[in-house]
Formats: sequence, C-alpha cells, structure tokens
Amino acid sequence: RGYTQVRYNQLGATNERLVNLQGDRSIGKDGGFLIRRARVILYGDVHERVSVYLQPDFASVVSDQYHSLVLRDWYADIFLDKKKEFRFRVGQSKVPYGFENMQSSSNRAPLDRSDALNSAVKDERDLGVFFYWAPDRIRKRFKSLVDQGLKGSGDYGVVALGAYNGQTANQKERNSTPHVVGRVTWPFQIGRQIVELGAGGYAGKFVVKTAGDVEAPGEMRDVRAHASFILYPQPIGLQAEYNIGRGPELVDGRVVERPLHGGYAMAMVKLGDFLPYVRGVLYEGGRKFETNAPRYSVRELEMGLEWQPISALELVAAYVFAERTHPEAPYPQESGRLVRLQAQFNY
Amino acid sequence: RGYTQVRYNQLGATNERLVNLQGDRSIGKDGGFLIRRARVILYGDVHERVSVYLQPDFASVVSDQYHSLVLRDWYADIFLDKKKEFRFRVGQSKVPYGFENMQSSSNRAPLDRSDALNSAVKDERDLGVFFYWAPDRIRKRFKSLVDQGLKGSGDYGVVALGAYNGQTANQKERNSTPHVVGRVTWPFQIGRQIVELGAGGYAGKFVVKTAGDVEAPGEMRDVRAHASFILYPQPIGLQAEYNIGRGPELVDGRVVERPLHGGYAMAMVKLGDFLPYVRGVLYEGGRKFETNAPRYSVRELEMGLEWQPISALELVAAYVFAERTHPEAPYPQESGRLVRLQAQFNY
Amino acid sequence: RGYTQVRYNQLGATNERLVNLQGDRSIGKDGGFLIRRARVILYGDVHERVSVYLQPDFASVVSDQYHSLVLRDWYADIFLDKKKEFRFRVGQSKVPYGFENMQSSSNRAPLDRSDALNSAVKDERDLGVFFYWAPDRIRKRFKSLVDQGLKGSGDYGVVALGAYNGQTANQKERNSTPHVVGRVTWPFQIGRQIVELGAGGYAGKFVVKTAGDVEAPGEMRDVRAHASFILYPQPIGLQAEYNIGRGPELVDGRVVERPLHGGYAMAMVKLGDFLPYVRGVLYEGGRKFETNAPRYSVRELEMGLEWQPISALELVAAYVFAERTHPEAPYPQESGRLVRLQAQFNY
Repeated sequence: RGYTQVRYNQLGATNERLVNLQGDRSIGKDGGFLIRRARVILYGDVHERVSVYLQPDFASVVSDQYHSLVLRDWYADIFLDKKKEFRFRVGQSKVPYGFENMQSSSNRAPLDRSDALNSAVKDERDLGVFFYWAPDRIRKRFKSLVDQGLKGSGDYGVVALGAYNGQTANQKERNSTPHVVGRVTWPFQIGRQIVELGAGGYAGKFVVKTAGDVEAPGEMRDVRAHASFILYPQPIGLQAEYNIGRGPELVDGRVVERPLHGGYAMAMVKLGDFLPYVRGVLYEGGRKFETNAPRYSVRELEMGLEWQPISALELVAAYVFAERTHPEAPYPQESGRLVRLQAQFNY
Repeated sequence: RGYTQVRYNQLGATNERLVNLQGDRSIGKDGGFLIRRARVILYGDVHERVSVYLQPDFASVVSDQYHSLVLRDWYADIFLDKKKEFRFRVGQSKVPYGFENMQSSSNRAPLDRSDALNSAVKDERDLGVFFYWAPDRIRKRFKSLVDQGLKGSGDYGVVALGAYNGQTANQKERNSTPHVVGRVTWPFQIGRQIVELGAGGYAGKFVVKTAGDVEAPGEMRDVRAHASFILYPQPIGLQAEYNIGRGPELVDGRVVERPLHGGYAMAMVKLGDFLPYVRGVLYEGGRKFETNAPRYSVRELEMGLEWQPISALELVAAYVFAERTHPEAPYPQESGRLVRLQAQFNY
Repeated sequence: RGYTQVRYNQLGATNERLVNLQGDRSIGKDGGFLIRRARVILYGDVHERVSVYLQPDFASVVSDQYHSLVLRDWYADIFLDKKKEFRFRVGQSKVPYGFENMQSSSNRAPLDRSDALNSAVKDERDLGVFFYWAPDRIRKRFKSLVDQGLKGSGDYGVVALGAYNGQTANQKERNSTPHVVGRVTWPFQIGRQIVELGAGGYAGKFVVKTAGDVEAPGEMRDVRAHASFILYPQPIGLQAEYNIGRGPELVDGRVVERPLHGGYAMAMVKLGDFLPYVRGVLYEGGRKFETNAPRYSVRELEMGLEWQPISALELVAAYVFAERTHPEAPYPQESGRLVRLQAQFNY
C-alpha cells in the first residue's frame, strides 16, 4: 500500500526566486517535474496486542542524491487492553501536534502543509515514545472520517502524551533532554455534521545548526501551543488552526529566543469526485531546523480543485498567491503567483 | 519480483587503468566482487485503467556509501482506452530512445549497454510525462518476445512521445525547459522471423557540471537521432543501432557544443540454454553527465557466452577487447583486455 | 519478515565520553532515542536449487542522513545437491568467522556484539563467494536451535570456505586481492544438552583509510584465528570465544602491523520468558575499519535481563560497566557505567 505524488510547478510562475524548501523544492527556478512523495507502507498486526507500521519515502534527497530512501514512519503500537483504547507507540512516528500535521498528505487538499504548524515539527515526525488513548467509538469515528473521504486525520488518540528527541525526523539527537508533547482532540457529532476541536503544546530544548559567523547558544527553548477547529466537509468543510510559541530565530547575526505565531484557515466543498478549496496561511517566526534559524514571514493564498475520478488516481490544480522569505541570506521577501499541478497515484 | 547481478572483472585484466564508470565500476584497479544491480520490483494494476511500476535499485552508491537505495523506475500508467492501447506514463521511467536502452538488463546478453546510445540518457531514465501507443496485437508481440527468451524490449509503444527534465535519472532539474523525445518502432513478422525497425530522436537544453577552471554556458543544446535494427534470435539474432547528434564536449578547457556519433552491432545464436554473442561498440563524443563533459573515444569488442540452466539463474562469461578514454584529466586513451564473469539471480 | 530495535542509553550514564561507535552510536553524549536496527527481509526459494535472501537495513546513516537504507544481506544460495547439504552463497553475506557474528542480532541476548570478534568483520558481512557444507541432520539441528529460542546461529555450515573483498560490508574494494576464510563448527548432542565447538580463521590484505599526517602502507596483512565454545541454554547456557591475530594499528603516527587479541565469556539462564545473562568482553588491538586504525583497549561487563512475553515483542534492560578507548585522537581511555534499554519488535 502507498501513494506517489508527481508535480509540476512551472506554469505561470511570476517569480523564480519565490521558493518553499520546506514544502516543495520544485517551486521556483529550475523546478521541472518532481516526485514529491513516493511511499510504500508495510503494516499489520503481528499479535493481538502489537501492530507495526513501516513507511519509507523513496524520493528523498540524501547528500545531493535525488530519489534515495529515508524513513518516515517506523514504529510499533503496543496495546495495553483488548479493545485497543490505550497504547504506546515506540519508534519514529508523527508528533501529536496539530491536525494538519496528523492528516496524511494523501488526504490533504492543499499541496503542502501550512508553514505555521509544520514549522513546529519538520516532516511531522520524531523518534521517541508516545502514549495514546481513544475510546472505541471515537476510534471508529476517526477511521470513518478517513474512509468516507472526509479528510480525517486518522487516530492519534483523543489524549496524546509523548517524549521524543526533538531535533525532528531522521536527525541525530543533539542534546541530552527529550522534548515532551501533549494534545487533546475530540470529534463531536452534531446532527449530521462532525466538528473536531483540539489543542495541545510541546516544550523542549532545540540545538540550532549554524554556519558562517552566526552564533547560537548550545541549546535553546522551543515551546509552542496550538488550537484546532475542523468542520468536516458534509458537504461544506471549514478548517482552522493557530499556534503561538517561542523559539530560535536569527537576529543580527545571533540566534536568540523569540516569539513566533501563525496559522491557517481553509474552506472546502465536497461535490462528488470534486473538491474545490481555498486556504490562507500566515506565519511569522524562525525556522529552527534551517541553518541559522532565519526568520520567515509567510502569507499564502491557495485556491485549488481536487478531482478524484477513481480511487487510484487524484488530480489537483491550484493557483497560489504567495509572499515568502527567501531561504538565503540576506533573506529578502519574495512574492509571486504560480499554477501548481499534481497527479497522485494510490496503490 | 526482481533480479540481482554479481560480477567479477579482475581475471586476465591487462590494464588496470582501463575503466568504464558508466557501465561497471569494478572494471580496472581495485575492482573485486561487485553487486552491479540489486532490484526488487513492485508492480500491479491498481485499477482497470491505472497500473504502477516501482523499481528501486539496492546497490547504488550515495555519496561514497555503497549498497544504498536509489530509484530506477517509479511511475504509473494511465490507460485511455479499455484495450490499453493508448496510455500516459507519469513519473520516472525509461526515456524512449533506442532499443538497447529499453531492454531490461536482465534480458540483455552483453554485460553493459553500449556507450553509443546509453550516453544519451544515463541510467536510461528521466522524470516526466510520456505518451505511448501500441495496437493490442503488437503489445502481445512485444510481450511474447520477452517471455520466449528472445531478448525483447518490452512494450514502450510503437509510437512514443514525451517531455522530461533532461538532466538524467535521479538528478535535480537545472533549467526551466524540458527535453522532448519521439520514437517509432515496429516488430514485423516475416515468416517465422521477427524483424524490428525503429527510429527516433530527442532535443533539449542540458546543464553541464563543471569543476576546476573549466567554463561552460549556462545551458547547451543536446540533440540526437537514432535508428535501430533487430532480428530476433530464432535462432540467429542480429542487432544494430546507431545515433548521431550534437551536445556538450570539453575542448581546450571550455565546454562547447560539438557533434557526436556512435553505435554497435551484435550477433547472437540461441542454442537451447546457451547464447553465444559478439558485439562491437563505437562511440566518439562527449559524456554530458560527467563533470566537464569530457570527450570519449570508445572501441570495444565483447565475445561472450550466456548460460541459463534454470530460469532463476543465469551465468555469463565474456572476453573483452577495449579501448576507452580514461575518465580523469588529461583523459588519456587506455586499451586492454579482460575476462568478465557474472552470476544473475532472478526472483 | 524482519525486526526493529529501539534503544535508550541515557539513564544512569556516568561518563558522556564513553562511546561505542561500532556497537551503538547512542551511547554517550547526545544519545537520545535510537532506532538501532530496522530490518525487512525478503527471502524464499526461487527454484529447488536456488534461494535468495535480501535484507536491507532502513536505519543506517548515509553521509550524515539518519534513517537511510544500506544493505546487510543480499545473496543467493545455489544448492549442488537435492538434500541441500552443499551450496555456494554468492553476493553480500556474513563472513563465516566466529559464532556471535553468525547469530542474528534478533536472537543475541547482549545488546551489541563483542568488540573482540566483531572487529574482524565490521557489520559481519562482505561481498564474495562462500561454500558451505552441512549434513542434513545437522542442518535440522541448527534450525531447531533457533526455532526453540536457544539462541542458535542458524546454518552457516559445519565446513565453510570463502573468498571476499575484505574491506567489510558496503565498502569499495581497495586492492586486487580477496580475503580468504575457513571455519569448522559442530553442534554435539550430549544427552539433553547441545555443545557446539568451532574454530576458524581468515587472511588477507587490508587497506586502511588515513587522515591528517598519518602514514600507512598501501595494503597490510590482516589475519586472525578464533575458537568458539557454546553450551546452549537448556536451561543454563555458557558461551565463550577468543581470537588472536595480526593487523593494522596506529603507532606513533604510522599505521603498522601489530598483534591483537580478545574474546568474551557469557553465562545465561533460560527461565520461561525471561533470560538473565552476564557477559565480559576483552579486546586489545587496532580497529582496521576506522580512519587511521587506532588501537582499542576494551573491557566491558554487561548484566542484563531479556524478557519476551510474546513472540512479537522483546524487552531488554542491562547494566554495563565499561572501559573503552575514545574514538578521537589522542584516543584516551574512558570508563563509566550506564543503563541500557531496548524494545525489539519482530514481524
């Protein structure tokens, strides 16, 4: 099982210096065709109390080599009870922070996650131990929200707690203290509609990579809190998340602790095989996982149409207005517009 | 499904400076045993109109690390009609240029592809969108030419058109213009013999990597045309291809556009489990995908015997006379002879 | 099929400079959670005379990128007789040297292999051709020693001979001469107990990587011999191995040929799902596969408890006293104690 996303972002692009390395490295100059994600998932119950989920990505970049393999998920769930309401998750897995981060990219309507919440945990994942609890009927509801094409997040518990390295996925840990995270969320059934409300936060010490003359403390405070609102598309969907926090940010040649905030709001309509959507994103703050943790100021509006004529194939076309900080010193602001195209294969 | 090739090229080698990095990096000094290809293929129809084909190689070199994973094929076929005569192929796949490039290495008799046509598309593949058409009865003929052990190419259409990045497989695109390619081929049934005639070409702009004091334009013309002739071995087979073109070549410290040409001719006989063959290769021109695009002058004669006692195991022994340009400045010509051995496992 | 090991080595660690890069890179400073092994194995008989065994590791480090893929095993067995007593193994596989090296890490009680024998063949494997012979009834005994949870090695023959590159797994060969290896071992049934005695050795020329001002000959002698004793745990098990040899070692800024020696002794008791064990390790000699081949002086005592409540899940806690050479110049001795924790998932 798995999925693949092939993209082309060069049509109608007005500014080749407008790039988004965190989201899609084929936006901007010399983009061309890109395999954005190439996933094959092995999973299953190996015992009534143990299941495994192994998901490598085959289109990662390792030291300039395109299309090499890097892990995404690689974990086991150990269930504490027969109904599987309580479990520990051990290995590399998604850090329970926010809704959009939890949702699979194969289900998300916009092409990339919002900077606002995704900058908290690049690649959404880290290595550690997580505890999840969800009552059986809510587990079923989480599952049905995905199965019915309502763009659910899957089951990351209604209560989640965890400890993890904190340097984001597939990175060496760089200090001796783990990050800790907590989250609560609940999908309320209100008549025929389902509304999910969630909130949570994490705290830890992050070690920023520096280059050139930039100085940074050995480790720095990295804390955030978020709130999420989701009205699932039956047929009109609304989705909004916001987070605030403090973390590393480059200021005048030094990385210091600074406040950050940002979020997004999205509306969509489920019309048979079609799903038009519009999403606005705002982010103001550092990107801790980039060298020197530069400050990003992001405003992006994406209007798109997802078409899934058959379950195996999904096509998305979107038009994007964006203003983003350029990822190289002196980090100027760049703005532009472009057409984005994606073909997704599910298997 | 997949196959693995293990090689040893040190017996009787007369010149340790005779190497062939494009073909087999264990030829020459410090070669030893080599896993040349380690392939596992996942493929299948995920819908009556969509199939996927995912083929990583597990014995690639990533930044000096041997035996890491890099993609070969990763694509989906989207069929436009029920008979599957018309289709789009999206993702990374073989660029339809030549016959030997299309043929699987698990079926080819000589150990490496000829420099002449393979220098057009290193690793035979690129990322883009391709259109293929082949009538149903020819699709069946393509398939039967492989299934009967006649060393066919598989079905890459009788008409093929495509647009792709152009920097060859698993590389970042480096300009804003795609390459375009076209090819026609037809396997004629003439009595009990099958003769396939094909021709095609591609055009695009290629960006050469440079090092040292070498200068190169930002992008350079890269065009080629080829013709192919194949008499399938029932029991005597003949195969010849030739291509001409223009592309980047290092001349006196500058990379400039220069003509290139080359081809090969091969004869083989299918004698039960055995298949003796002899192939001569000629190439005169630049290798665009190497740093500085040095000029190669290649003459190679390979006489070999393939033995496939059971479908799971194929052994090849060959004796090679070769004259090749050495891949390091000042790029001298080296000539020599060697014994080549290969064990191939099919699974 | 496969297994994954997740570890945490930071509890009670008394010396952050005590590290063991060959065994577990999360011991010492900035360790955190670690996926030590992430294995998926594809294997099967592709013919009555040919079987394949393909085992990549998904948690390897490739050029600073964590959680990338590098091969462990990738070989085919070609059986010469119907009873499968005689076979050639072609590809990358374990070099038949010692008992602990042959035993799967999923079966070994201590968390890492002993330096003493593992320093002979880092990652236990190399690329080449091996010959194995074992009578049918001993093949069955090897198999049953694994299946019954008695921590057997699997079947690497009672007689083993091989030729291989010699630069250890996943490395480029660096000279023109292969290493050769031979081993004999026999599991004697004595009443209800099984005692295995083994011995063997290898010889070859190794090429040491150097850095800085260190000088080394082009290639150096690398020879070792070992003896092994195993009393399988029914319920009390004893295990001891020792090896002596000569190989590269850094002395006063030059890499020279020097003697080396070391071994380990272990006792364990199989008590239902629990298996307490204690192992002492000694090694005095160079580590040829590290840059400059520094001399290591290792003394380690590990006391641990393995608990396998269900076949899918195995938990290990151990307390370690260790004195080890630090892997960076000037290579001081470091000593310390730490708690080691591991969760292993089998699938």
